[in-house]
Amino acid sequence: MNHQQQASLKSQTAEKILTGDRATGQLHLGHFIGSLQQRVALQHRYQQTILVADMQGLTDNGHHPRRVADNILNVVADYLAVGIDPLKTRICLQSAIPALAELTMYYANLVTVARLQRNPTVKHEIEGKGFGASIPAGFLTYPISQAADITAFKATLVPVGDDQLPMLEQTNEIVRKLNQIVGEDILVECRPLLSEMPRLPAPDGKSKMSKSLGNCIYLDSDDRAIARAVKSMYTDPNHLRIEDPGCVEGNVVFTYLDAFHPDSAYVSELKQQYQAGGLGDGTTKQILTDCLQTLVAPIHERRAEYMADKAQLVALLKQGSEQAQEEADAVLGEIKRAFGLKLF
Amino acid sequence: MNHQQQASLKSQTAEKILTGDRATGQLHLGHFIGSLQQRVALQHRYQQTILVADMQGLTDNGHHPRRVADNILNVVADYLAVGIDPLKTRICLQSAIPALAELTMYYANLVTVARLQRNPTVKHEIEGKGFGASIPAGFLTYPISQAADITAFKATLVPVGDDQLPMLEQTNEIVRKLNQIVGEDILVECRPLLSEMPRLPAPDGKSKMSKSLGNCIYLDSDDRAIARAVKSMYTDPNHLRIEDPGCVEGNVVFTYLDAFHPDSAYVSELKQQYQAGGLGDGTTKQILTDCLQTLVAPIHERRAEYMADKAQLVALLKQGSEQAQEEADAVLGEIKRAFGLKLF
Repeated sequence: MNHQQQASLKSQTAEKILTGDRATGQLHLGHFIGSLQQRVALQHRYQQTILVADMQGLTDNGHHPRRVADNILNVVADYLAVGIDPLKTRICLQSAIPALAELTMYYANLVTVARLQRNPTVKHEIEGKGFGASIPAGFLTYPISQAADITAFKATLVPVGDDQLPMLEQTNEIVRKLNQIVGEDILVECRPLLSEMPRLPAPDGKSKMSKSLGNCIYLDSDDRAIARAVKSMYTDPNHLRIEDPGCVEGNVVFTYLDAFHPDSAYVSELKQQYQAGGLGDGTTKQILTDCLQTLVAPIHERRAEYMADKAQLVALLKQGSEQAQEEADAVLGEIKRAFGLKLF
Repeated sequence: MNHQQQASLKSQTAEKILTGDRATGQLHLGHFIGSLQQRVALQHRYQQTILVADMQGLTDNGHHPRRVADNILNVVADYLAVGIDPLKTRICLQSAIPALAELTMYYANLVTVARLQRNPTVKHEIEGKGFGASIPAGFLTYPISQAADITAFKATLVPVGDDQLPMLEQTNEIVRKLNQIVGEDILVECRPLLSEMPRLPAPDGKSKMSKSLGNCIYLDSDDRAIARAVKSMYTDPNHLRIEDPGCVEGNVVFTYLDAFHPDSAYVSELKQQYQAGGLGDGTTKQILTDCLQTLVAPIHERRAEYMADKAQLVALLKQGSEQAQEEADAVLGEIKRAFGLKLF
């Protein structure tokens, strides 16, 4: 498909995509397989906005704003390095779009505290973060802010994992409530675009890959770091001798091969050999190491180039954010008009 | 004191005042005696900002935005009619100042949900409003938004009733926390300026004067409405015959005479007569009616003139809001810089 055909395809669909990442760390292979790859594909077919969610990052880093601030350009460089094209995808910074904060304030009056406390995603995250009784108000209410992000761009499709579905339900509740109050369809409901890829486990096979657990393979990991991570991977603890039959279920090396190796027939063959006996973990790990190094090396390299010109990243983010503010401000303006608050 | 002297006095003091009203109804005599009169006096000595708090009004009117919107210009006309001078006092509209919403978002990460739930003012109001389990998130968090209002203008003095002191405590907690996080004194703590005037009771003597209870004498009540309200006032239920001694404590007519009659010696004399016996409620009520009509009539008249030129009110509010946004945006900018979020 050439560029013209792509453009025509894009204008045919009214679907708009909103997606993004908390700017709380560099992106890793879990992001790559779970969402970045998909975004690269989607940008040819849809109007896509990617939000660098620094405000959301602050909701559980309120006392450590630098942890968020220092990662904004990292995330933008990650995007560009994996092939997100700023000419096709709008990349913008949440904190640079005041209309998102304003929408959040309006929506907060339409959602009860009890409803937020029942939100399964938030509940689960609150437990995971060990806030105890000290939940920041900004954290409890971040589903409202997320509804602002989604509705500000009239997004109709939101790529999510199924653990995030309650967030979209919350958004659509706000959409319906607001439209009902004003008696017109200012806001648009969204649908999830579920990722087909199950969550990538961490090398230990137990936890999910997580910046905070320090068990990630990042998009800018170098060859040595990748080799080290693969070497530490959980395989089959009963597979003691090479000639023994091994188990591929729960074997992280095979999970990663399934996710990242370009030749699935070859991976199937390896699995058969491994299950039959005669294929050692050293060999499978070497194959995975080669595969990941081949994948990550060019990303790593492009990423370094982008990071060498931070002014360019800032300029890109500024342009995207200005466009985004214009669009979000239009939605805000419609709400204010309908509320009778647009006096000037 | 002439204008030049006033200007010089104002520039000598660094004190800044922030005050305001929810735009949920016209202002009444309770506002006049409790705060408006004071503001008219304060504007000569301090830099004063008055916020028409439409966003705060929405926190318990989320489903009825017109109740708020329709009162914005009413409130501005009330201000001007009682003598608030837009050349001396900046009058601005909360919803027209995006930086306030942005500050609220940052501050929300520094306040726990438990802390908000413990706030005595909010607790009391939640009970009073009968929200039950359905407290809007915006209502629970409005002390954070109020902290944004106060700190955005670096207000040092906030005129409040003592029931509002917990709100200023909450604000100062945020101020200290934020300054500590960034390691510099960006925000300024505020002090209460307690009103000397006790809360004016409603004509029935039981409830406080309240828009929602419909027992107010408004600043644009006409002579008939004032006469009717005074006639309904609670006096001394045991004072059956004129010649009987009457009680002035809890007698709403005397409470109002104390508050509004310009001649306190005369009111003292009336009280003595009333207590001794020989002064009828009809007479005291006529004296109060005359007094309130004399006070309100010119306000009523000026108010009608202002309301006849709504474009002028809008222009005034726009100008004040633009100045306010500039000032609030500077504070926001300082915070974003210190957080490392001011990339462009």
